[in-house]
Amino acid sequence: MSTNAETPAKSAKSAREEGLDFMPKFGADGLITAVTVDATTQNILMVAHMNAEALQKTITTGQAWYWSRSREALWLKGETSGQIQTIKEIRVDCDQDCLLLLVDVAGDGGCCHTGRQNCFYRRVDGANEHNTIRLAFV
Amino acid sequence: MSTNAETPAKSAKSAREEGLDFMPKFGADGLITAVTVDATTQNILMVAHMNAEALQKTITTGQAWYWSRSREALWLKGETSGQIQTIKEIRVDCDQDCLLLLVDVAGDGGCCHTGRQNCFYRRVDGANEHNTIRLAFV
Repeated sequence: MSTNAETPAKSAKSAREEGLDFMPKFGADGLITAVTVDATTQNILMVAHMNAEALQKTITTGQAWYWSRSREALWLKGETSGQIQTIKEIRVDCDQDCLLLLVDVAGDGGCCHTGRQNCFYRRVDGANEHNTIRLAFV
Repeated sequence: MSTNAETPAKSAKSAREEGLDFMPKFGADGLITAVTVDATTQNILMVAHMNAEALQKTITTGQAWYWSRSREALWLKGETSGQIQTIKEIRVDCDQDCLLLLVDVAGDGGCCHTGRQNCFYRRVDGANEHNTIRLAFV
């Protein structure tokens, strides 16, 4: 046995992290996290989830599909709002359990269902006198 | 009864989305997703998870703590590598189930355990002749 032999576990880790096969790792709930970024402004728009079907539809159609956990349904982002996200690039992280979508947004260029341009419109603003952590709008 | 009365469910949703109380929504696994961004370059460095203790330590110490799912342990990012992440700002998304950390990175400014500056070093590069999806380094 070669002293350089990798264990099967090490070899699988290496293939996942250094290889060029796409092997998205879905969680126990069948979902993978997707961080969606405006390809032009680089602003982080939203974080959502995809099941295997949503990911496949995203890759084949070039538009972002997600899995809505609240509605338990496939979801073409922008189908109602017009804020369709056209995929410019999909990246995957080291252990392939997270995706980064670089998108162009149609309609008014926004994203959040509250009407804001992106979902991260509040920051943690520290604790008050009751030791309760408060937010502030950014 | 006022015709303007909100249902309790609607009212809770509104408090979560429009209010200024920090009420992070941890998943069934006790974790919340955190997207970590370099505060200077705006590059997305990594996506990881926090349990309630990691989040509390992050807020009180001003350094990013996570929960390592592989090691099942609290994890001060950079404790070994020197790539300590100092928190500049924490944002929360509309339904408060995802955090955005804006950080300054110590050490060599990197983040990924593979030695790269960030974890998103590969892009989905399309399918090959066997319909297998391949990656490419960016």
